[in-house]
Amino acid sequence: MAIKKIGKQTVKLQNPPSIIGTATIVGPKEGEGPLKDYFDIVLEDDMWGQESFEKAEAKIQEEAIKLAISNANLSTSDIDYLFSGDLLNQITSSSYTARQLEIPYFGLYGACSTMTESLSLGAMAIDGGFANYVVCATSSHFSSAERQFRFPLEYGAQRPLTSQWTVTGAGATVLSATGNGPYITYITTGKIKDYGITDANNMGSAMAPAAIDTITQHFQDTGYSPDDYDLIITGDLAAVGKKILLDLMGKKGYDLSKNYTDCGVKIFDGVEQDTHAGGSGCACAAVVFNGYIYKEMIKGNLNRVLLVATGALHSPISTLQGESIPGIAHAVTIDNSLN
Amino acid sequence: MAIKKIGKQTVKLQNPPSIIGTATIVGPKEGEGPLKDYFDIVLEDDMWGQESFEKAEAKIQEEAIKLAISNANLSTSDIDYLFSGDLLNQITSSSYTARQLEIPYFGLYGACSTMTESLSLGAMAIDGGFANYVVCATSSHFSSAERQFRFPLEYGAQRPLTSQWTVTGAGATVLSATGNGPYITYITTGKIKDYGITDANNMGSAMAPAAIDTITQHFQDTGYSPDDYDLIITGDLAAVGKKILLDLMGKKGYDLSKNYTDCGVKIFDGVEQDTHAGGSGCACAAVVFNGYIYKEMIKGNLNRVLLVATGALHSPISTLQGESIPGIAHAVTIDNSLN
Repeated sequence: MAIKKIGKQTVKLQNPPSIIGTATIVGPKEGEGPLKDYFDIVLEDDMWGQESFEKAEAKIQEEAIKLAISNANLSTSDIDYLFSGDLLNQITSSSYTARQLEIPYFGLYGACSTMTESLSLGAMAIDGGFANYVVCATSSHFSSAERQFRFPLEYGAQRPLTSQWTVTGAGATVLSATGNGPYITYITTGKIKDYGITDANNMGSAMAPAAIDTITQHFQDTGYSPDDYDLIITGDLAAVGKKILLDLMGKKGYDLSKNYTDCGVKIFDGVEQDTHAGGSGCACAAVVFNGYIYKEMIKGNLNRVLLVATGALHSPISTLQGESIPGIAHAVTIDNSLN
Repeated sequence: MAIKKIGKQTVKLQNPPSIIGTATIVGPKEGEGPLKDYFDIVLEDDMWGQESFEKAEAKIQEEAIKLAISNANLSTSDIDYLFSGDLLNQITSSSYTARQLEIPYFGLYGACSTMTESLSLGAMAIDGGFANYVVCATSSHFSSAERQFRFPLEYGAQRPLTSQWTVTGAGATVLSATGNGPYITYITTGKIKDYGITDANNMGSAMAPAAIDTITQHFQDTGYSPDDYDLIITGDLAAVGKKILLDLMGKKGYDLSKNYTDCGVKIFDGVEQDTHAGGSGCACAAVVFNGYIYKEMIKGNLNRVLLVATGALHSPISTLQGESIPGIAHAVTIDNSLN
């Protein structure tokens, strides 16, 4: 059988899966941001009637998955596999969601790279002939993440300017073996990069080297150049990491100044909304992709996009034990047409 | 393209990957148990020179993966993907291990089902044509798990008789697109089952329904009966869950009394070693599979095995918030021959 691998870290799909439905649900703050018109549901209350932030996050993920399946004109029993993960310890948002859905379930942990980790594995499951329909999903919640990774919210701890604002929301994508696109055509899977950042309030700097490594490898493996893309977008490097990435990619000879941005930069108005460096969290790439990017592709305003979700794979325990923050970035190419 | 799915939750691999190398490293207690002669390395000190239990667990996983790759006569640069996960918050044992190895990395969270979750996705990556070589791995450590999920070790909390003993160790499997077996031939991916158990000291009962569901579905999907297997083995139901499984499978018309056991029952001598119900942890299925089962298959003493690693997908936070424990079980068939 032909190996689909090209170059060192990329596969070119032979039967590219089609995205046949997406859904996004976001919290009130995200619903006041620049992308507000792209989201399916904007919550008035980020607790959504639940008793804890963690239970609210699980409900948001569950409803986003159900809505994506409904938007694809399918029912949960049609779905062969669910690939999902989140930031919480033991990814409970995803597991308690999967409990409600009765779909064969692969739990993932890629921190904020989860959207492209799930799209990568979901697309391989379809292209490999193992599934007709899969759902790829992730979620995050400002309040569940902040109290787990940083400080109890009640402290009112001051946030440095390098800090980012965890997006409250969830995004889900339904991939199908048949359909009219947009298609997932290439997958470049990341290696971990760790340049020694230890500050959990400076995630953009911790993750930028991984994004640079994956994007560079993607260009080398595929032969694409930046100009072959309408949009190259990282997950949640936000303003600090975006600047590092642009500078260092430029030094490597790749000019991304015309068509590169970051989901964490897009989702909030950093000045008006006081989010400092920008958005973060698994939901950051998930809602920007399943909302803004998908809908702009359907309209034909974007035709080829490189989505590079970025994850910081530390834990509060590893940070307390003096470890630095390992970063990872997984890239997927989404194409409106196959040629 | 032909869909490889058979029945509701199973795929039959068309180019079954071959296991070309494994490795196991265990702690001192596991090295005194009934399977001691099957492990590659038995540690004299479960800290292995590291400063914390968590760092020791990462070192154990890293060395197990390196040894498996060496046992397969490969080097890390030959490996297309690493699929791994563990029990710790944000799976830091796996991510810090992946940082050292420079292999494209998919982080997983399936709790103690991780060994078969990683084998499932690794086998699909090869059978689907995306990789020539993958490594599937997981680890656990008694001391890192106990203090995260239950009580600080210093409390000396009394353990009820339903409790299990988290295995200290790691197991790694190298899968190849070519080879002479043993082969992975079928994959049955589990759905979450939750019958309302809330006691983190009674994991066998929490996970047994998921194992029963997956094994039953496997028989229905494949047409196999219990007698088609030399061994059917769950991951870490231990004595309590094993009895539940045998009873309930019998009521469903499947007699497993002749060829079923559990890795958590095999790994310790429950009376002599005071481990109560038996072993648990991601490493339980990992070291029993990569040590005992693999070596008995190579000798020809076992020819077809159904490995069903079982996971309890709760977190300490979800338990404190009153949630019950969702269970999952993923099954893989390992065959000495293809016919």
